[in-house]
Amino acid sequence: MAGYFLGVDLGGTKILTAVADEQGKILARKKLPTEANRGNDRVIENIIETIRSVLAEVGLKKENIVRMGVGSPGPLNTKEGIIYLAPNLGWENVPISRILEDRTGISVILENDANAAALGEKWFGAGQGIDNLIYITVSTGIGGGIIIDRKIYHGVNDGAGEVGHMVIDPDGPLCGCGNHGCFEALASGTAISRRGREAVERGEKTLLTDLCEGDLNKIDGGLIARAAQLGDQVALDIWSEAGYYLGLGFANLVNIFDPEMLILGGGVMKAGELIMEPMLASLKNYSFKSAFNSLKIRQAALGDDTGVKGAIAVAMGDRLYREG
Amino acid sequence: MAGYFLGVDLGGTKILTAVADEQGKILARKKLPTEANRGNDRVIENIIETIRSVLAEVGLKKENIVRMGVGSPGPLNTKEGIIYLAPNLGWENVPISRILEDRTGISVILENDANAAALGEKWFGAGQGIDNLIYITVSTGIGGGIIIDRKIYHGVNDGAGEVGHMVIDPDGPLCGCGNHGCFEALASGTAISRRGREAVERGEKTLLTDLCEGDLNKIDGGLIARAAQLGDQVALDIWSEAGYYLGLGFANLVNIFDPEMLILGGGVMKAGELIMEPMLASLKNYSFKSAFNSLKIRQAALGDDTGVKGAIAVAMGDRLYREG
Repeated sequence: MAGYFLGVDLGGTKILTAVADEQGKILARKKLPTEANRGNDRVIENIIETIRSVLAEVGLKKENIVRMGVGSPGPLNTKEGIIYLAPNLGWENVPISRILEDRTGISVILENDANAAALGEKWFGAGQGIDNLIYITVSTGIGGGIIIDRKIYHGVNDGAGEVGHMVIDPDGPLCGCGNHGCFEALASGTAISRRGREAVERGEKTLLTDLCEGDLNKIDGGLIARAAQLGDQVALDIWSEAGYYLGLGFANLVNIFDPEMLILGGGVMKAGELIMEPMLASLKNYSFKSAFNSLKIRQAALGDDTGVKGAIAVAMGDRLYREG
Repeated sequence: MAGYFLGVDLGGTKILTAVADEQGKILARKKLPTEANRGNDRVIENIIETIRSVLAEVGLKKENIVRMGVGSPGPLNTKEGIIYLAPNLGWENVPISRILEDRTGISVILENDANAAALGEKWFGAGQGIDNLIYITVSTGIGGGIIIDRKIYHGVNDGAGEVGHMVIDPDGPLCGCGNHGCFEALASGTAISRRGREAVERGEKTLLTDLCEGDLNKIDGGLIARAAQLGDQVALDIWSEAGYYLGLGFANLVNIFDPEMLILGGGVMKAGELIMEPMLASLKNYSFKSAFNSLKIRQAALGDDTGVKGAIAVAMGDRLYREG
């Protein structure tokens, strides 16, 4: 009997695949390194191996699987199932859906990883019961997934939700995209690390100088959080500033979307109060009272499973809407 | 026979009401001054008079009218039909839908004016056949209407689309909302006039000094456009700068929504190439290539009828979706 779903979370460093029943409950999971450095074919073999492994573990065949959802970095084309460009995978124009369909005989739906994560949180995590929400992941970059009326809003080119390149200070620091003052150039983990390195380089009086043991590359969010917890003012200021810009960017989104809920994921949010306190003050300051007062702000609830549960939600698709 | 629709465009200075057939074709229209300074009751009487007038002109009774759409400044509550606050009308917490229903016996749907204008352009103007678009009006402020899947996206508190208070330069000029560097503090007609006045006040060498005949209040978009057309560098720079920020703000929206079309209305856009040229350069620079390349950019097509045709589209509601 069909009635099961596969979710594949395809990342730059690891592939996490799971099989779930028709309620979305995970029955088996398998993680493998992506091995992007060994080429496209190797990555595909690794995906196939994770699928083979989870199906074998629960004794299911391809005939039992309704659909497979794949969450992948992009840009990509969800309708045609093509990954246009995924620098972390070294991929360009890979028709991943067709490749996996040919290899497995299972129907595939491709989704952008941030969108998949948003769906995962909406159906299985912090956003259950919420129809309109914005999911934002703050890590090396800032990505987003916009859910309107319980569905991902994709835009014309599957480009919607690229909130990381919203410009919030045109005189701000250079972003990887070539512009200045993008949201992610001011408030991402990369921006936070850069500020820590710059402070040490400028010779500011900060614990970071000792903590990094002479290696500027060791200065990351974790180290800056440690310095802040030890009372280091430079580190505290870095978190304040990042929180300020994070709140400002979120406020822009809240004013534009007036959403029910904002779900925050990604490594930077793990800094807890260090980032949440200045972020909330700034978000409140810059957003409309009515929108802010009704806004639910939640931490992502699925942790490392956000991606794979999102991929399962992608696979389940209409099934979820009928039940939810 | 029922089958006709009323649209009421309720503005700070005028009320424009029209009756339309079931294809949305306007059969009669009536304009009256709003007379907000004469109090709530007077405004209501003026609305009633426009309705009475158009119905009489085409020989229709309330029984012939399916619904009335009202486009009004906000914030407001579309579900309950209450205008929370309309400074230009001097209104606070006015249950306009109930009042008009009681007086006319016709069912009323209230909509924010920018959203109504977006719907008008979508169904009768520049956006026909387009399912996902953003309508922006640039005049004294900057307002927006977001259409997703052919419908207005309202957000939780009917606050969605408040693009004018997206912060794009936190060190920028003070906005009426109390924050600095909002989109409308940098790129609206008000911002353009302010820059003109400031240039004269600073004693810059500009034709504006003579053109305003000693009265700084005469310096508005029209006058600055005239100076620019006469080759005045200060005036040209003002348009350049406004266009730059306009394009930047639009790019943020394009990157977030990846829409099919951007429709531009409002008095500022009447400056033509003076604003369009720098705006387009900046929009192109700040938006993702894929989103920009597929984006259709159109001027609003309905002119002074945008509001009233929008109100008719609001009244027609589902009727449009079934046909369109």
